[in-house]
Amino acid sequence: MTKKTMRALVKTGPHRGAELQRVPIPEYGPDDVLIKVKTAAICGTDAHIYSWDDWSASRIKPPLVFGHEFSGEIVALGEGVKDLQIGETVTAEGHFTCNKCFFCRTGQGHICQDVAILGVDTAGCFAEYVRIPACNVWRLNEAIAPEIASIMDPLGNAVHTTLIDEIVGNNVLITGCGPIGLSAVAICRFAGAQKIMATEINDFRIDLAYKFGADFVYNPLKDDVVSEVLKQTDDLGADVLLEMSGNEKAINDGFTALRKGGWSALLGLAPGKVKMDINDGIIFKGAKVYGINGRKMYDTWYKMEALLLGGLDVGPLITHEFAVEDFIEAFELVLSGSCGKVLLNF
Amino acid sequence: MTKKTMRALVKTGPHRGAELQRVPIPEYGPDDVLIKVKTAAICGTDAHIYSWDDWSASRIKPPLVFGHEFSGEIVALGEGVKDLQIGETVTAEGHFTCNKCFFCRTGQGHICQDVAILGVDTAGCFAEYVRIPACNVWRLNEAIAPEIASIMDPLGNAVHTTLIDEIVGNNVLITGCGPIGLSAVAICRFAGAQKIMATEINDFRIDLAYKFGADFVYNPLKDDVVSEVLKQTDDLGADVLLEMSGNEKAINDGFTALRKGGWSALLGLAPGKVKMDINDGIIFKGAKVYGINGRKMYDTWYKMEALLLGGLDVGPLITHEFAVEDFIEAFELVLSGSCGKVLLNF
Amino acid sequence: MTKKTMRALVKTGPHRGAELQRVPIPEYGPDDVLIKVKTAAICGTDAHIYSWDDWSASRIKPPLVFGHEFSGEIVALGEGVKDLQIGETVTAEGHFTCNKCFFCRTGQGHICQDVAILGVDTAGCFAEYVRIPACNVWRLNEAIAPEIASIMDPLGNAVHTTLIDEIVGNNVLITGCGPIGLSAVAICRFAGAQKIMATEINDFRIDLAYKFGADFVYNPLKDDVVSEVLKQTDDLGADVLLEMSGNEKAINDGFTALRKGGWSALLGLAPGKVKMDINDGIIFKGAKVYGINGRKMYDTWYKMEALLLGGLDVGPLITHEFAVEDFIEAFELVLSGSCGKVLLNF
Amino acid sequence: MTKKTMRALVKTGPHRGAELQRVPIPEYGPDDVLIKVKTAAICGTDAHIYSWDDWSASRIKPPLVFGHEFSGEIVALGEGVKDLQIGETVTAEGHFTCNKCFFCRTGQGHICQDVAILGVDTAGCFAEYVRIPACNVWRLNEAIAPEIASIMDPLGNAVHTTLIDEIVGNNVLITGCGPIGLSAVAICRFAGAQKIMATEINDFRIDLAYKFGADFVYNPLKDDVVSEVLKQTDDLGADVLLEMSGNEKAINDGFTALRKGGWSALLGLAPGKVKMDINDGIIFKGAKVYGINGRKMYDTWYKMEALLLGGLDVGPLITHEFAVEDFIEAFELVLSGSCGKVLLNF
Repeated sequence: MTKKTMRALVKTGPHRGAELQRVPIPEYGPDDVLIKVKTAAICGTDAHIYSWDDWSASRIKPPLVFGHEFSGEIVALGEGVKDLQIGETVTAEGHFTCNKCFFCRTGQGHICQDVAILGVDTAGCFAEYVRIPACNVWRLNEAIAPEIASIMDPLGNAVHTTLIDEIVGNNVLITGCGPIGLSAVAICRFAGAQKIMATEINDFRIDLAYKFGADFVYNPLKDDVVSEVLKQTDDLGADVLLEMSGNEKAINDGFTALRKGGWSALLGLAPGKVKMDINDGIIFKGAKVYGINGRKMYDTWYKMEALLLGGLDVGPLITHEFAVEDFIEAFELVLSGSCGKVLLNF
Repeated sequence: MTKKTMRALVKTGPHRGAELQRVPIPEYGPDDVLIKVKTAAICGTDAHIYSWDDWSASRIKPPLVFGHEFSGEIVALGEGVKDLQIGETVTAEGHFTCNKCFFCRTGQGHICQDVAILGVDTAGCFAEYVRIPACNVWRLNEAIAPEIASIMDPLGNAVHTTLIDEIVGNNVLITGCGPIGLSAVAICRFAGAQKIMATEINDFRIDLAYKFGADFVYNPLKDDVVSEVLKQTDDLGADVLLEMSGNEKAINDGFTALRKGGWSALLGLAPGKVKMDINDGIIFKGAKVYGINGRKMYDTWYKMEALLLGGLDVGPLITHEFAVEDFIEAFELVLSGSCGKVLLNF
Repeated sequence: MTKKTMRALVKTGPHRGAELQRVPIPEYGPDDVLIKVKTAAICGTDAHIYSWDDWSASRIKPPLVFGHEFSGEIVALGEGVKDLQIGETVTAEGHFTCNKCFFCRTGQGHICQDVAILGVDTAGCFAEYVRIPACNVWRLNEAIAPEIASIMDPLGNAVHTTLIDEIVGNNVLITGCGPIGLSAVAICRFAGAQKIMATEINDFRIDLAYKFGADFVYNPLKDDVVSEVLKQTDDLGADVLLEMSGNEKAINDGFTALRKGGWSALLGLAPGKVKMDINDGIIFKGAKVYGINGRKMYDTWYKMEALLLGGLDVGPLITHEFAVEDFIEAFELVLSGSCGKVLLNF
Repeated sequence: MTKKTMRALVKTGPHRGAELQRVPIPEYGPDDVLIKVKTAAICGTDAHIYSWDDWSASRIKPPLVFGHEFSGEIVALGEGVKDLQIGETVTAEGHFTCNKCFFCRTGQGHICQDVAILGVDTAGCFAEYVRIPACNVWRLNEAIAPEIASIMDPLGNAVHTTLIDEIVGNNVLITGCGPIGLSAVAICRFAGAQKIMATEINDFRIDLAYKFGADFVYNPLKDDVVSEVLKQTDDLGADVLLEMSGNEKAINDGFTALRKGGWSALLGLAPGKVKMDINDGIIFKGAKVYGINGRKMYDTWYKMEALLLGGLDVGPLITHEFAVEDFIEAFELVLSGSCGKVLLNF
């Protein structure tokens, strides 16, 4: 099979854009599976690679098949793979870990010393076939639709971030309503948050945030976020801050609006260093801050499955689907921000 | 005011029953308030006092006005009380703490060394008026109905028990669906539990458990609880056990049905020592067990208010209301078990 | 090498004793290593197998080479083993896990669904050579002596139990001073416990407990443990209970002597069901109880190494060494209880 | 007694310095005690008030008797004070809380909404007599020397910071060895840390840090702190960062040198906003950060007493004592940094 070719979206060089090309179907080792991709989803990271920003220039070595969010069907098994079967519908954790370092050996594979990332360090899933180590495959419960499975990677980020500490009964501020922030809104509602306050500048996403159960969505370009949050919380501030934007003002507003003794989880990456008021924002408050990286392997996946089986509905997060041929339109849409998750069908 | 009398339900002596009598309105000190009781609720403890079991005989010194669950209106303030006002609708925490011991000084007033309990150690709320230390008064948010306020004491037990560790996404087994177990069902549903499994032998309460969102309610007299729970959990067992019965078989079944690495909270008091298989039930499982006493003061009260304001609906828990004159009927109903919370109106 | 034979201690049949025999050197698979055993240590479990109690009869299938605590040198590597080298001095985790179940995939390998135990389910280390899966091998830091390495398995139990919650500044009661209880004494002292109180009936072990830093060692056959603990703790009780005995009276005394709001870890296995006063011992106290199984893989191993490198000295725990030929004397000594750890040299 | 006068150190106006004056002995209310100060200690905050920096100018209203660290003897009791006695040797928590806000009612008095600080908002302890609310008084265990008691306030900061999460077996980096950082070194050693690494630029304090048990003390003006820490930790980084300096470079170096998955506690206040690399320092690392304010009331005090009774020796922290008349010399010494704690005797 390895001499055959497949269609794949290739980052061909250090410039904007990508090309739909025919490339060889990936080879796979004894502990790998080969998966026929049905649906892939476009991540913000993919949009960065497409538009070729500074981060991409420093990290990506073209040519590269990119993409890391998908679901599909197992079509071939390495000889050492015992617990999976051809024909199974699956998705996968895209962080391939070393399984030998301190972190991997203490249940912290998400911060492995020697990780390789699907579609960044290895050939990705924007292709008809993708190679995945068997231990990274996540077999789908039949109650979970394949499109939902294709967004379990970002949903996992939201689950990891949101459920790192107590949500039930708490007033939550979510800064930034991209797909992960929107998922966080849904998870907070599901988990019994009291008031869910969010910030977002894109109207399409503001509407989605309300649809997922936000009580208030503030536009930081128009609203005074800090005073609005204080107004909603008897001047105490939000019990919880979920930071999904990486924006300096959002971060500082977020910590200003955080209640004393409250907790915060940081997922959004900042474009550079961030000037923070740590005295008033963290120290005097006795606040707790969690940095969040990826998904816990595989605690987050089990929890995510439990939430979906328990009734968490993130279907409305998928707002657009494209045939892979229309990938340019899809990427431009993602870059516009006027969307939830955008899928590419293979 | 102290020479006037009021109607009150009095435990007159060491025997079954109680009497509706006229007794003096309680005196109150400089740091107390006097509350006109509107609605009181009957606790299992009150039913024990009424029927005069071993525990009552060892603990209660008649004559005593009993009762500790209520809501009402402040009608008089001690001279040192600054932050409360006449006319406010309130309920109260019925554990009066010393505020001086190690526990009180470290945020653990619920296990105070030198506690006095309303309606057990001091004159209770089954009366037209009740004296309460100002610091124990819980001022009602106007969105919370007074009848709901009258059951915040037992609801607090359920909140304290249920939210002592993670619920969201977890499969929960609740053994015993008295009013606190039923509240736990509602809280688990609100907090995003996956499957809620409960046990109960009374049909009236089985129906209520389903109404509050239980997925499965097993009758241990008819069903094999352990195998049912294993069937619902891919043979892993329940992630969480909330023990509300104090029954030896329920406790052992509960721990047998608990998942390895799962957690359990024990609230139900056993009639005597309990024979437990701690090897298989706790040790080999690496299980965590929390003993639960009362309500955290006042963490649980704030959390409870947050849940109620966030939409937790425990209204259906109140199944019967009686005028205080009909107290015998009310107590007999509570003793029958075919009810949720039973209120007495003053 | 596999056709050659070696000396090994074999449980030959369902009766007391064991035999030193020549048996084939174990075969090893592609992911295994073969280790030349230098020193093995006798566990209570081994003593049970030797004396053939009920548990052994239900669990062990003779003939079996038993033993699971050891250190030695790698002498052969399976073809797939990349990160270990012939000649390295090592010890090993004796729980061989499936790496596929929910527990293994969430950092809880110590409670794996499908575990095999060295010297119980597979040929053990009371032999010149032992086969170990490469991922279970623990490479020794050169600062750790090989004899100490041979007792890292039970030391790990003590580390797992003792450090599951806060020790620093706490008054600790350790019930039972076998080798694991004695290790717990040493760890508590190292970790900054305030008063360390222990119970033990064997004079040899009472002396050892004092040597490891216990402040008070009570003999429950002579002393009133509960009142002694209360006397030492201003009548509050011990902040922490580490239960290492499995004895019903010790368990109940331990919980009676536990402070309200305190925590307890249970490691000692009881010979049968235990009659417990859960009302006063756990529920009213608002106590927390942890069941402890084995060692966290491999969190506990890293922590243990850190403690040893940081200066924890458990050398005095090794009280006797025997040549393997003198195994009968060694086992009789272990069964007498008048010893710490007893080593067998190969 | 209130018409009598006493000697006190008074900040007389908005400029450098202070004056030793006679002022009226403080009046005290029914729930207060009056304490005869024996020994006071100079805090960094007092040095700021003395030298009159921006913070002082914005916060302090002269004339003010300042100072908040002391020990002394109770000489008068308010009429409502029941549990203290004249003649007792005591110290006190200097944060006077409202006891009514959400924080006070949930065991978080250290972040009270409406706190008044001794020697900042009320007349302080640099005087022969000081008024303290009875509930803030900390009665001394007789095994604790009065000079040690006079530094329990800053020692409490160190205890709160250091023991907020796990120390035992961990490699710790402490940035800044003022008195609180030095105390943290001692506490880490007492609590079983593995390697203790610290940073400091003052030679006197570098020596003290070694005396308290630091394994390595780096001078950031000469040493590359990050690479030194990595060298000591197999390139993993420190498990724990205790930030005591408020210095931007120290903060960023600290987070760079922190291990993935490690934890950090921030106590040092920064002179302004801090430019931080939160991506690499916190988010990708999955690090946990705790902001620390004051001492938990009164959890930290009980823990501190337990450590001192358990053998923690912070005596060497007190490096200088002065008669109050020599206060200028004392303050200049504190401002030079070449000291541990400096005491003023009254």
